[in-house]
Amino acid sequence: MDQGVLARRAAGLSTAFPAPHFPSELDPGVIAFDSGFASPRLLPELSQFALNALAQHREEVLQYAPPQGHPKLRAWIADYMNQDGCDVSAEGVLIVNGAKHGIDLLCRLLLDEGDAVVVTAPTYFTCIPIFRSFGAELLEVGQDEHGLSVTDLEDLLARRQRDGLPRPKMIYNVADFHNPTGVSMPEDRRRALVDIAARAGIPIVEDNPYRRVRFQGEAIPTLKALDRDGGVIHVGTFSKLVAPGLRIGWVAAEPEVIARLMQLKSDGGSCPLMQRIVLDFCRSGAFAAHVERVQASYREHRDSMIAAIRRHLPEVGFTEPEGGYYVWLTLPAAMDGDELARRAAARGVNIIPGTKFFAGPEGYPRNQGARRNAIRLSYSFANPDEIEEGVARLGEAYASMAA
Amino acid sequence: MDQGVLARRAAGLSTAFPAPHFPSELDPGVIAFDSGFASPRLLPELSQFALNALAQHREEVLQYAPPQGHPKLRAWIADYMNQDGCDVSAEGVLIVNGAKHGIDLLCRLLLDEGDAVVVTAPTYFTCIPIFRSFGAELLEVGQDEHGLSVTDLEDLLARRQRDGLPRPKMIYNVADFHNPTGVSMPEDRRRALVDIAARAGIPIVEDNPYRRVRFQGEAIPTLKALDRDGGVIHVGTFSKLVAPGLRIGWVAAEPEVIARLMQLKSDGGSCPLMQRIVLDFCRSGAFAAHVERVQASYREHRDSMIAAIRRHLPEVGFTEPEGGYYVWLTLPAAMDGDELARRAAARGVNIIPGTKFFAGPEGYPRNQGARRNAIRLSYSFANPDEIEEGVARLGEAYASMAA
Repeated sequence: MDQGVLARRAAGLSTAFPAPHFPSELDPGVIAFDSGFASPRLLPELSQFALNALAQHREEVLQYAPPQGHPKLRAWIADYMNQDGCDVSAEGVLIVNGAKHGIDLLCRLLLDEGDAVVVTAPTYFTCIPIFRSFGAELLEVGQDEHGLSVTDLEDLLARRQRDGLPRPKMIYNVADFHNPTGVSMPEDRRRALVDIAARAGIPIVEDNPYRRVRFQGEAIPTLKALDRDGGVIHVGTFSKLVAPGLRIGWVAAEPEVIARLMQLKSDGGSCPLMQRIVLDFCRSGAFAAHVERVQASYREHRDSMIAAIRRHLPEVGFTEPEGGYYVWLTLPAAMDGDELARRAAARGVNIIPGTKFFAGPEGYPRNQGARRNAIRLSYSFANPDEIEEGVARLGEAYASMAA
Repeated sequence: MDQGVLARRAAGLSTAFPAPHFPSELDPGVIAFDSGFASPRLLPELSQFALNALAQHREEVLQYAPPQGHPKLRAWIADYMNQDGCDVSAEGVLIVNGAKHGIDLLCRLLLDEGDAVVVTAPTYFTCIPIFRSFGAELLEVGQDEHGLSVTDLEDLLARRQRDGLPRPKMIYNVADFHNPTGVSMPEDRRRALVDIAARAGIPIVEDNPYRRVRFQGEAIPTLKALDRDGGVIHVGTFSKLVAPGLRIGWVAAEPEVIARLMQLKSDGGSCPLMQRIVLDFCRSGAFAAHVERVQASYREHRDSMIAAIRRHLPEVGFTEPEGGYYVWLTLPAAMDGDELARRAAARGVNIIPGTKFFAGPEGYPRNQGARRNAIRLSYSFANPDEIEEGVARLGEAYASMAA
């Protein structure tokens, strides 16, 4: 069967990231530091909301939904973002089937084959095959403990201009609790990023799934809150704050951008039952209580993991995350993260080696290439006891390599 | 903001079809013959299934789902299709967010800009902007009371070969209870279609949302059941048989085609709660009872509509559908369906004029152009009393034009 160019480009990309699986399919005794699953203890009680939706909103939840999403859910999301410093209208919100779906639609909106997309090195691995499937060239900029390097970005843009190359079509970034590094950008750097992008006329796609999963420190304005000219497109989701299985996320942008995205969303509307469950849960007292519980529990998970790392892996470098699901470990320069992941797996601990999070160098020779001496640990799914045990086993794997 | 070619192509397409809305937003007294909404009386009782899913399958339905879909739901669908004459494996099924999502993914798999897609004249209007957004050239073939004309198709393919034009990349067809015409292809014509496509090496996309909504006559083998070499890709959905709001559909094809579609599906898996609700509903006794009720009720709706048409619109031509949601009325040659739709709307009856269902002639000058003297009536949403009243009002609108 003949295949189109979108399909041919996607060929071979599926192995770039591990497929999610049911937590129940994990072998007994295996500790999962590799997944973005929620803590099983934090899955919300949604039965009453589902029952109420099916009883009180029967036609709404079982007939087709409006393509842009439920107007009340869009209004709730706009209000939620505006309480967080933004200036978004319900007309500027599109409900999507999770954040990845939003990013896919934004690629359809903004990218042609050969267009350049700026990403951090490292970056969220699931986005790499999505960008590549649209034929994008991925341009990496550096990152430190304060997130995306704006000097790197300025250098990159100046270099491309000098070389007569077109400006990138998108800057993709996770400003809060970056995946995989866990770091957050301070306000001054966020302002600088938004300014540079606005001056260059490049839209920023702000992927912000962990915003409210902050368990330490003060919130820093989102890129969208600092946006003055509509150049920031914000992608949000309920997956990391409420539950991954909801498959409800959103894109917040200028209404004319949302109108264009709707033309590209061919799924008959996102599930109206899930939208109603999310809406009623978020408007209930259960939401604030849930957010508190999420913050307190993941703080405990983070603390357990940091303590265990200090105990069992005293030589690795890391930045302690103030929120989110992940900590990024920098190993001694000569140590190979892929090999460490294999040895950890042999001891029943699943981790993701750092190399999976770099967009280069294969096919993108201008990038710096994957940093081999790093790994990402997720502390969301395993409980504190498992975290201690898992990091201890990881320490054994590490010792076997250092020996 | 710069936009990519996919987005630029989609610009202006949104008005090609009316957006769905909440049934509750209909003005009081308005009778809707324009929508694919289910009859409110036929919306299933899903509360116990939702409760059970959230209580007994908590982690499954609230964590991420496997990208291909729930293995048990895929197995159920394979079995359901195999009882209907197919030979499909669970590995050959991909769960998608409704049939339109499946068709969108198939476009991403099969089409490049400028590729030709064969459609019937008329065809399902929602697919027209999807195909166009991928830059496809739409080639119309004729249709009679037995569906797609295989002689037309053979002529078209022969003509393109003679002219040195590439073969079409896809034949899109609704063989059972066609939308908008309501007709079904007899078995011999289905066999001929499958043979022609196989000989020409063109995949058939069989969109079959109404398969089990048959209330008269014997089932005819699906195109997929007649497929011998894997060239038929079947798109199914629970929207028309169970409820539109579920947003669960599927693509059934050779496992290697499914593997490629999975690479293009960037939504983090279809909603696991909805998959579990559908699975448990379909495996319960409620499913067979529901299907019986759907068939009996829509038969009653169809009978009411046909009787009302004979009474109030004695001059129009139509083929009585044996299933599905729609009847297609051919008006006297000089009568304009668009004007009739406007006059009907002024009398509180919403219908869709036939012109919306043709892929040409704008931009596709080789097509024959829209047939203006036709309208589509849907009998699914309105109840028999409303159907009688709505067709009576439509008769008044008709009389005002014939006068």
